[in-house]
Amino acid sequence: MINHLNKIMEQAYDAYLSYRNVSGNSKKKFLYAIAEEIESLGDELLETASAESNLPLARFAGERGRTCAQMRAFGDLVAEGTWVEAVIDKAIPDRMPMPKPDMRKMMVPLGPIVVFGASNFPLAYSTAGGDTASALASGCPVIVKGHPSHPRTSNLVSGAIQRAVAKCHLHPFVFQHVDGTSFEIGKILTQHPMTAGVGFTGSLSGGMAIYHYAQQREAPIPVFSEMGSTNPVILLKGALQLKATDLAKSFAASITMGVGQFCTNPGIMLGVKSSVLNHFTSLLALELSMLPSHRMLHEGIHKNYTSGLDKVLFDKGVETVYHAHAEGNLVGSPVLARVSATTFLQNPDLHHEIFGPFSIIVVCDNKNQLTEVWKILKGQLTTTIIGTDHDLELNKDLIDIAKNIAGRIVFNGVPTGVEVGNATVHGGPYPASTDGRFTSVGTEAIKRWVRPLCYQDCPDFLLPDELKNINPLGIFRKVNGEYSRQSTM
Amino acid sequence: MINHLNKIMEQAYDAYLSYRNVSGNSKKKFLYAIAEEIESLGDELLETASAESNLPLARFAGERGRTCAQMRAFGDLVAEGTWVEAVIDKAIPDRMPMPKPDMRKMMVPLGPIVVFGASNFPLAYSTAGGDTASALASGCPVIVKGHPSHPRTSNLVSGAIQRAVAKCHLHPFVFQHVDGTSFEIGKILTQHPMTAGVGFTGSLSGGMAIYHYAQQREAPIPVFSEMGSTNPVILLKGALQLKATDLAKSFAASITMGVGQFCTNPGIMLGVKSSVLNHFTSLLALELSMLPSHRMLHEGIHKNYTSGLDKVLFDKGVETVYHAHAEGNLVGSPVLARVSATTFLQNPDLHHEIFGPFSIIVVCDNKNQLTEVWKILKGQLTTTIIGTDHDLELNKDLIDIAKNIAGRIVFNGVPTGVEVGNATVHGGPYPASTDGRFTSVGTEAIKRWVRPLCYQDCPDFLLPDELKNINPLGIFRKVNGEYSRQSTM
Repeated sequence: MINHLNKIMEQAYDAYLSYRNVSGNSKKKFLYAIAEEIESLGDELLETASAESNLPLARFAGERGRTCAQMRAFGDLVAEGTWVEAVIDKAIPDRMPMPKPDMRKMMVPLGPIVVFGASNFPLAYSTAGGDTASALASGCPVIVKGHPSHPRTSNLVSGAIQRAVAKCHLHPFVFQHVDGTSFEIGKILTQHPMTAGVGFTGSLSGGMAIYHYAQQREAPIPVFSEMGSTNPVILLKGALQLKATDLAKSFAASITMGVGQFCTNPGIMLGVKSSVLNHFTSLLALELSMLPSHRMLHEGIHKNYTSGLDKVLFDKGVETVYHAHAEGNLVGSPVLARVSATTFLQNPDLHHEIFGPFSIIVVCDNKNQLTEVWKILKGQLTTTIIGTDHDLELNKDLIDIAKNIAGRIVFNGVPTGVEVGNATVHGGPYPASTDGRFTSVGTEAIKRWVRPLCYQDCPDFLLPDELKNINPLGIFRKVNGEYSRQSTM
Repeated sequence: MINHLNKIMEQAYDAYLSYRNVSGNSKKKFLYAIAEEIESLGDELLETASAESNLPLARFAGERGRTCAQMRAFGDLVAEGTWVEAVIDKAIPDRMPMPKPDMRKMMVPLGPIVVFGASNFPLAYSTAGGDTASALASGCPVIVKGHPSHPRTSNLVSGAIQRAVAKCHLHPFVFQHVDGTSFEIGKILTQHPMTAGVGFTGSLSGGMAIYHYAQQREAPIPVFSEMGSTNPVILLKGALQLKATDLAKSFAASITMGVGQFCTNPGIMLGVKSSVLNHFTSLLALELSMLPSHRMLHEGIHKNYTSGLDKVLFDKGVETVYHAHAEGNLVGSPVLARVSATTFLQNPDLHHEIFGPFSIIVVCDNKNQLTEVWKILKGQLTTTIIGTDHDLELNKDLIDIAKNIAGRIVFNGVPTGVEVGNATVHGGPYPASTDGRFTSVGTEAIKRWVRPLCYQDCPDFLLPDELKNINPLGIFRKVNGEYSRQSTM
């Protein structure tokens, strides 16, 4: 196996030396071709993903759309070209006491990137997901370790990417796919000297295992493990008074979306003790009771969900407000619990993510206690604040605290359903991710796979197009401190 | 000691909650005030730094200028404001099948930053050096662990910064200084839960020690250890023919600058066997012989230099071309060595940095062998290519390989003398640094201390100025994919 993986990494490095010099327009054609090839897989892809995940077919029509739109968004980004962050400081030969050299900087791709996809999004966060799309866009070859819970889906998508590689006449090892269930494969790939970075989406234990493997390397590399969070929600009084029914509907849908198997699932909801909070809690339980229960992704996740529930629901002071108790193999029943903030503060077990359709309402005695709970929460992908403008005005301090813990602050919405945009941040302080300085969703995810390179006094004819005087690509550049699309002649 | 350091970190975190909300204009006033306070220290600072480092007084007039100019450059950067990388995707409420939310992203400061300064630049890379300046500019409080080789200089500068803090009415613990020689202090500060990042400049062993301390933390944090390199130089034939004398003068000065105690010192020079390379080697030895020898920074560095020389100069196949053999306590004698590429390839000891006024010329049989040597070099802060346009045209492949190994590629210059600019990259793949994705010099160094934060559907009145519709700061923003300084109304 080691020989096989060595060969794969050597091939990837060889591909890197060629692929990193491919133009933005050519990479756009490639990323668009991947999207087309994935679409060409037709219903077979949707049916395979559904069969391997226990999730409904319709969900995969949506997820495929997201996956292909994401590929094309990265294609557009690199064809436009400004993403390389070109900066030029022109020479001042007669500066005293020393001449100022000409310095030009742009971002360049790191090298071969190893991607570990997630089981809960077999398309959008897996083989051709955001990690793969952003790495390929940056100019890095990708090695995907196929997720063992959807091997056939992964191979179908991998075949589509490889057809796009051939169609675009790129180096044949720009994308490679490794099958296998052994943890050892992930370890060897992560520790290989030619690996320049790792993208992972999944559990805290899996993400930290990869992170620790990387620590044993001689040369440090970036490891982006996106590991999920409890996505705490603050419910403020005015909003509860005004629209408890709407909120209950939205949050019931958010908690149960994808059988709760979203890393942005709202797992903790905070409010101050009041009749409106009680009313909202009852309405939320009612809404949950009207939704059907579904099967979870695989046995491991189902087992973790039920053991997580067992651990928490029998804890002292934890009240089960609603428990669907649906029958059937692998079915994940929605559960709503409630606890006082005093108990919550004393029981760290309640602070951890329970991956599945579960949420717990933490009832605080007053704003001070709510603030106390808010302050001790660990790193999160998202925090959500539900409140009228008046509520928010009165609680600016809570928004300021939210900035400490999350990558994204949602106002009057649900945290699930991450938009793939230019301003998206899907990431956050540990344990939400191993590196809160980057996002794994949205076009800014490309920044994970690059480093800056500076050319000092380089003759114009040798510079990459991005840095040439005439600015042939017409990209936005920072020239002598000013931003423009102009040439520097 | 632990209690003392705990208190320092708690104070720093408290300062963070206040300082991160300080405006760019106020931060500019603060950074300018630091520069003024440092200048107000007058000759006492220069004399103290000179006495503690064995470096001449004139050098510190220059280094002080660099330090203060660097502070002001960061002040200008944050007052202008575009550095926060604001991105706005406006809502599309009627998008099908789901409304598109309003998403706005900007960079926000990470938290308290611990800085370990370098002994070789008691001003520009130490207490008020690039790490401190960039962290303070980003909105992060700084805790400097004073370097034990220049404690009085460090305390003088620390006092200047603290006076600037008071003058600007900032939180009193925005900047703190910790004295002490114990390694334990660095370990405790690096591992403290409230530490959000570490900047280090110094040796490979010191930088990796800090890096490994950080790995033992529960929550990962970024550690930027800038550890130096051999800064290899390729000498191409046409240039050697045309200007051997000028090159010999420049490189003799570069090798001996600051008694060779620059992390960008050109420690390895490569060329193809030829009479012009021999001629250049003789000229370089001649130029070196005309330069005086000086005392090195401290005993540890001097001891490492002499033992490094002993290790290398008596190795099989290594010829000493010039050795000053100057007398005197702590004197670092300039040395020029020569070796065949065949021997060099077989002896990894020769690939490591020898910190001091030393350089070795590697004589290659032909271009293939030069390429072979070029390819096996580890990560570097810089690579330099000396050649006429014709030389460079013929050796584009070597420039492409240079991109693999360095943060900065210098053409027809010397690697020493790092410009503090907008396009500067001082950093590179391991072992030049622990994270080649960032620079420690120049305005882009601010990117090390921030993370992205996204506001989803946030009412305009609650948004930070950088993201408000009317763009009150007039910064460049990416709005719906287009770059402009306009409002989004």
